[in-house]
Amino acid sequence: VAPRITLSTDFGTRDSYVAQLKGVLYSEGPADLQVVDLSHELAPFDVLSAAWFVREAITRFPPQTLHLVVVDPGVGSARRPIVARVADQVLVGPDNGVFGALYDGGESVLEIEPARLGGRALSSTFHGRDLFAPAAARLARGEPCEGFARVITDYARLALPEPRAERDVLVGQVMHVDHYGNLVTNLSAGAVRALGHAERLTFQILGQEVAPLRDHYAQVQPGELIALVGSSDRVEISVREGSAAERLRARLGTLVRACASAVRESS
Amino acid sequence: VAPRITLSTDFGTRDSYVAQLKGVLYSEGPADLQVVDLSHELAPFDVLSAAWFVREAITRFPPQTLHLVVVDPGVGSARRPIVARVADQVLVGPDNGVFGALYDGGESVLEIEPARLGGRALSSTFHGRDLFAPAAARLARGEPCEGFARVITDYARLALPEPRAERDVLVGQVMHVDHYGNLVTNLSAGAVRALGHAERLTFQILGQEVAPLRDHYAQVQPGELIALVGSSDRVEISVREGSAAERLRARLGTLVRACASAVRESS
Amino acid sequence: VAPRITLSTDFGTRDSYVAQLKGVLYSEGPADLQVVDLSHELAPFDVLSAAWFVREAITRFPPQTLHLVVVDPGVGSARRPIVARVADQVLVGPDNGVFGALYDGGESVLEIEPARLGGRALSSTFHGRDLFAPAAARLARGEPCEGFARVITDYARLALPEPRAERDVLVGQVMHVDHYGNLVTNLSAGAVRALGHAERLTFQILGQEVAPLRDHYAQVQPGELIALVGSSDRVEISVREGSAAERLRARLGTLVRACASAVRESS
Repeated sequence: VAPRITLSTDFGTRDSYVAQLKGVLYSEGPADLQVVDLSHELAPFDVLSAAWFVREAITRFPPQTLHLVVVDPGVGSARRPIVARVADQVLVGPDNGVFGALYDGGESVLEIEPARLGGRALSSTFHGRDLFAPAAARLARGEPCEGFARVITDYARLALPEPRAERDVLVGQVMHVDHYGNLVTNLSAGAVRALGHAERLTFQILGQEVAPLRDHYAQVQPGELIALVGSSDRVEISVREGSAAERLRARLGTLVRACASAVRESS
Repeated sequence: VAPRITLSTDFGTRDSYVAQLKGVLYSEGPADLQVVDLSHELAPFDVLSAAWFVREAITRFPPQTLHLVVVDPGVGSARRPIVARVADQVLVGPDNGVFGALYDGGESVLEIEPARLGGRALSSTFHGRDLFAPAAARLARGEPCEGFARVITDYARLALPEPRAERDVLVGQVMHVDHYGNLVTNLSAGAVRALGHAERLTFQILGQEVAPLRDHYAQVQPGELIALVGSSDRVEISVREGSAAERLRARLGTLVRACASAVRESS
Repeated sequence: VAPRITLSTDFGTRDSYVAQLKGVLYSEGPADLQVVDLSHELAPFDVLSAAWFVREAITRFPPQTLHLVVVDPGVGSARRPIVARVADQVLVGPDNGVFGALYDGGESVLEIEPARLGGRALSSTFHGRDLFAPAAARLARGEPCEGFARVITDYARLALPEPRAERDVLVGQVMHVDHYGNLVTNLSAGAVRALGHAERLTFQILGQEVAPLRDHYAQVQPGELIALVGSSDRVEISVREGSAAERLRARLGTLVRACASAVRESS
């Protein structure tokens, strides 16, 4: 089986940073290594968005896949480099909470000790190349991470914001604005269905009401607002074949209220 | 030979959608699978542009290469998931006409039957992950598509716009605006050369005349407009080392007239 | 070992150009070929920026890696197609100086002779597909480049701008503006340290003074300007977790002066 390393970064694709990373991985990894791009367009310096990305993407890979995840606003400071074994995957990156949304108590986290990686020079701005890639390359060659890292327990946790209940209303927020302008919320399908039947659910966002909870885009006309359960099993506010983010001027953190309308008695 | 699956989508590269797709492909495909990115920046929801892309790109691959092409404005509606065998390639995606520009009468098209893919849950917004990727992974493992799909004949056709002749003028249109701002038309080299010799051809677009039909960018100065036969064997209107789209404010569908000037008698 | 070809182009990712290139490489290269994307977002037509990219990225790959580098404003003109063997790597592309920053006198450069590549049709606008990719595919199959190319000595050189010394001041310039808005200069760490101790160095750019030369982003607050030695061992002007390019309205070629402040005698 060809060993694989996936890459998720905020490096962008205009500069040579991704290329330098791949050069190191192919030079120091096994000869038959495959490097797989997941995204290089994660929001710069944004740990919370990266944690959301990691939760959605990483667990779908084959067991024991290696993942390099580098969104690293603290590069060069005291934040620690880690290897995290969690959800049957192996992640390498800075200890800033980016892997936190995967932690379930069963994780094992090790701090990489740069001095045990062969004594290479370490730049102060590009640990992806100088530290995380060499560590991932060793793992891909089959070296145990205990050879250059030691177990720690005081690693960074991270809590993604959870909706809060106010009487019969559930108040969530926009957690991700995707490429199409869909607004992905933290309202889970289960939580809103507990409020009432889909036909009776109403979502309030920036003064607009979107109702009911639909099943398919095709249930509204192109250009219309729609609320439906998206592919991550959470409520999304969308415009069919358009951008809800533009239409509503919504963004990360915009509040979304879910409530069930009262049943009107037939008179 | 390592099996390969190419990806062409309108997913963009900021979200986790591409990553999720790759996770499923590597998890369910053969161990030595290679996934090859072609583009994730196809115009969102734009079936015609995607069909143009497919025609230009897909036929250059080795015979029997597998291609996942997902531009799917009708996701979750009644549009059918298909496998199309055409031009010695195998394409998987929604039946919305995206493969139509390749159909030549020799194609074989099968409808994927989700229930025969193992009964997984199907989201209403991401069939790329839940349906097309699992189908492509099975094909990459060598399973025959007859195992989960049945031949159909009423699949979606699609006709790309063709130029029309008006007396001695050929009226075409801009079919694609590329990254550099080049305007790729549907005027084929053969059709315009039938009008007259390259030296006598004139192209009219948005009130501008561009003449004659050139061979190389280097025949005009940087910043000048030029008409030449591009790499898809069709006339392109360009600005050397600049953007014709910006210069002319041209876009998809902008009309381009080709005509041959009268031969002036020497007096 | 799987043969690999890396790709660095200014093609962008919206069009089918990258896909067409990959189709040719997989069709004409060895069955187990891996194609590795480095960047398709190099600045269009910009040879100097591409040369900078090549210098930063290419030398990190395993010895004898094949690299296709296509930024080709002169496509279709008399500029020659070449294979360059330099820095233990093999590069294929147009002879316009893009590889020039790697040349150290030990390079070997060969002109590709299209007629010896099998007589395929050559478009006037896309030599990446019609000429460079077929040549790279042959090299990846193990053919010697002498089979279709001949040694030349009059290939294009290129000199990246060097800082100049004015009394005790070193005047450099911004060579690259990266994705984060960091301003990468041509002032090497060694050259500025020769001016004086890091604590005493001051950098002047567009009327602003940035001092001293720091070690880590974390030494200033988020949003503050900082000068430090970046990952290419050159001085960079940055804003911590922000964009120095936006803050200073700086761009390629913006001058950056380095000087050491006079030692103030304790009085």
